[in-house]
Amino acid sequence: MEVVINHLKNNFNNYLEELKDYLRIPSISTLESHKDEMIRCAGFAVQKLKDAGMTRVEIFPTAGNPLVYAEWLGKAGKPTVLIYGHYDVQPVDPLELWKDQPFEPVIRDGKIWARGANDNKGQHFVHIKSVEAFFKTLGELPLNVKFILEGEEEIGSDNLVLFLKENQDLLKCDAVLISDTSMYAKGVPTITYGLRGLLYVEVEVTGPDRDLHSGSFGGAVANPINELAKIISKLHDKNGKVTVPNFYKNVLKLTKKEKDNFNLLKFSDKQYAKELGVKELHGEKGFTTLERLWTRPTLDCNGIIGGFTEKGAKTVLPSKALAKISMRLVPNQDPVKLAKEFTKHIYSLSPKSIKTEVRTLHYGYGVVVPLESKAINAAAKAASKAFGKKTIFTREGGSIPVVVDFVKQLKAPAVLMGLGLDSDDIHSPNEHFLLENFEKGLYASAYFLDEFSKM
Amino acid sequence: MEVVINHLKNNFNNYLEELKDYLRIPSISTLESHKDEMIRCAGFAVQKLKDAGMTRVEIFPTAGNPLVYAEWLGKAGKPTVLIYGHYDVQPVDPLELWKDQPFEPVIRDGKIWARGANDNKGQHFVHIKSVEAFFKTLGELPLNVKFILEGEEEIGSDNLVLFLKENQDLLKCDAVLISDTSMYAKGVPTITYGLRGLLYVEVEVTGPDRDLHSGSFGGAVANPINELAKIISKLHDKNGKVTVPNFYKNVLKLTKKEKDNFNLLKFSDKQYAKELGVKELHGEKGFTTLERLWTRPTLDCNGIIGGFTEKGAKTVLPSKALAKISMRLVPNQDPVKLAKEFTKHIYSLSPKSIKTEVRTLHYGYGVVVPLESKAINAAAKAASKAFGKKTIFTREGGSIPVVVDFVKQLKAPAVLMGLGLDSDDIHSPNEHFLLENFEKGLYASAYFLDEFSKM
Repeated sequence: MEVVINHLKNNFNNYLEELKDYLRIPSISTLESHKDEMIRCAGFAVQKLKDAGMTRVEIFPTAGNPLVYAEWLGKAGKPTVLIYGHYDVQPVDPLELWKDQPFEPVIRDGKIWARGANDNKGQHFVHIKSVEAFFKTLGELPLNVKFILEGEEEIGSDNLVLFLKENQDLLKCDAVLISDTSMYAKGVPTITYGLRGLLYVEVEVTGPDRDLHSGSFGGAVANPINELAKIISKLHDKNGKVTVPNFYKNVLKLTKKEKDNFNLLKFSDKQYAKELGVKELHGEKGFTTLERLWTRPTLDCNGIIGGFTEKGAKTVLPSKALAKISMRLVPNQDPVKLAKEFTKHIYSLSPKSIKTEVRTLHYGYGVVVPLESKAINAAAKAASKAFGKKTIFTREGGSIPVVVDFVKQLKAPAVLMGLGLDSDDIHSPNEHFLLENFEKGLYASAYFLDEFSKM
Repeated sequence: MEVVINHLKNNFNNYLEELKDYLRIPSISTLESHKDEMIRCAGFAVQKLKDAGMTRVEIFPTAGNPLVYAEWLGKAGKPTVLIYGHYDVQPVDPLELWKDQPFEPVIRDGKIWARGANDNKGQHFVHIKSVEAFFKTLGELPLNVKFILEGEEEIGSDNLVLFLKENQDLLKCDAVLISDTSMYAKGVPTITYGLRGLLYVEVEVTGPDRDLHSGSFGGAVANPINELAKIISKLHDKNGKVTVPNFYKNVLKLTKKEKDNFNLLKFSDKQYAKELGVKELHGEKGFTTLERLWTRPTLDCNGIIGGFTEKGAKTVLPSKALAKISMRLVPNQDPVKLAKEFTKHIYSLSPKSIKTEVRTLHYGYGVVVPLESKAINAAAKAASKAFGKKTIFTREGGSIPVVVDFVKQLKAPAVLMGLGLDSDDIHSPNEHFLLENFEKGLYASAYFLDEFSKM
């Protein structure tokens, strides 16, 4: 392994330049105007996988953005790892809050700054490069490797899920390796064994059939913003619990071991509040902050708009108001059932004076991976070697919708070896990725392939 | 008078072409980018007043948009009428809902379509032209006339109010004539004797100090959209009453005569709901729709924005959410005191987990004009002659903030001789003005000058 690790070490600066090229492509999947960039980005990934030494590298078109597939199956009898990543990124608004251009990567303060630097280009790029290092030094990999990179993670992974269902043989593997989560703290190697699911909806309220003058009409007709606000205000009770019927019915309870484990992490509410710039945290009563974040379902408005929103004043009584609302789900909540419950609930909260429409945009299940699996253990060893510390096990509040599909369809454990930090601002302006994590991530990836090949 | 009326009749088409030129100027006062257009528009009004025959026509610069003043004081011993109008218009968004370009006036279906066609260019233009008709036919006016046209009515009239305070001699008059309200119904001449006031505020809620990923952070920190929605939902009780303390304390009660008068108008809730495209009306319990619209204070959100509002999904837990909220006030509510009460109330509704800021954007008092004044009677007679029907007396839900200042500062009654219709979409896309009302408005204006000169 020393020769592989040394190769990675010696080529670190080259990898960084290549990553910059990857980050320059504005592959924002939620913007329809960026379709060409998605195709360009997929093409870039194909080239990097070919350069790395993968023998079969292929683009699979989908109804949406293309999938990038690669394989090297030269180790019959050895396990097969499927490495997953996504080349699409989040939108960049509000642009004025970025210190640099989001698609002009900058190295500063030991970090690389750009949209996608962490989520997820930086994180999956380490695996392409660790594979390359094996080929360049030893001429082969210690086990069989497949890659699947998608361009729709930020918008629900619908097409990858379809592809998974139809290509189980192609993607067959013994473990799925994913770096798309956070380390518990800087320098602390972390394997995440649980992720929350997601249900993302839009609620649109229509009052009068056109915008009205709030003077001439105000007081006689329901105002869609006020009514939408009332509906939203009723989605939580005074204990911070979500009021959607049956919302908590199938929620998997935390085991005592998990609870004890979380308590060992010495999480500080005070420090956390300080980091987020708030006086006080806020959430479901009866649970610690880590429990709320990792193991409890939540409901958040992600966007709201209605009426006049520019500078100044306009006395309009608007026709419409719209909220984007997402629920983070945990095992074993069923997003499909909850979408129905949510819709029914919203209608029950809507008075006759308005028309309300609920649209489900996308969803994904929560997942918990068995801590005992070989792949998890190999990953824990590998991360410890790379970072020089004992690996810890956490759950995470975010969703990677496709993880549960990998687990279900391929019947393989998902190994979430996160290299990001929660402070990396991955869905905000000024996203960045620690160079140290990029470097140690390269080693961790190589060690994992080695460790898992021996199990 | 016949010669004057005939002149107006014969020149109607010319007036329409001149009005079109006036409407082509996009004088949107709330947009700072339109400052030059405001100046151009004031210049246009100056020229029209000069062309009409007014002897002294002057621009008075202000800290904001210029005031246009004109006078003809050739009838010593006769009363003086001050004619008020505003050359600024509302914004035009959403532009895609306009059938025509908002600043390219079109004549269709017996209406003129453009932003400002009714509110207020079309309505005050009739007075410029009726004055012109007197000069062109009789060589003089039957009484003394002053004009004051402002460019900030849609943003609060602050500078006109200042000007009023400092120029009471210049503006001294026996009545203020204003056409900026609606007729009760098509063809029904209407004098409005009451207007609501306004208090326009912004409420901004800040949660975390930056946008966060709703997966990684959702559940542990207050969401500013959810919290803003909660605050808004608490601004009305279940009877539709505004919960701001002391909000109703000084509300002037409706007299029995007014109540009876309103009932005579045979207002149909069913028809009204149908016109607005709603299944059911909505408002303060215990009051009829006309009472709610004309005599009761209300609270409406005029705009709300926060988080991701484009097409698609973004799982952001936003840092900020903002609502624009206006309260329509009635005599004798005090907007200055209520701004303080509102602010205190919002703070009391804000939990520690968020920061809330309340900003007052502008305000105006409500007003009721004595029905017995000579000017009101002259206007009622004039409108009856012009429209060939008995004039009715109404109050109106909208605000003309400056009316109360005219009444207070100049100690003169304000005569609200409205020529618009509620269906004219004055603050919405596709604003229009009935050609019939433009024409009969010309006659009503001329008759008023004649009638009032005889009182």
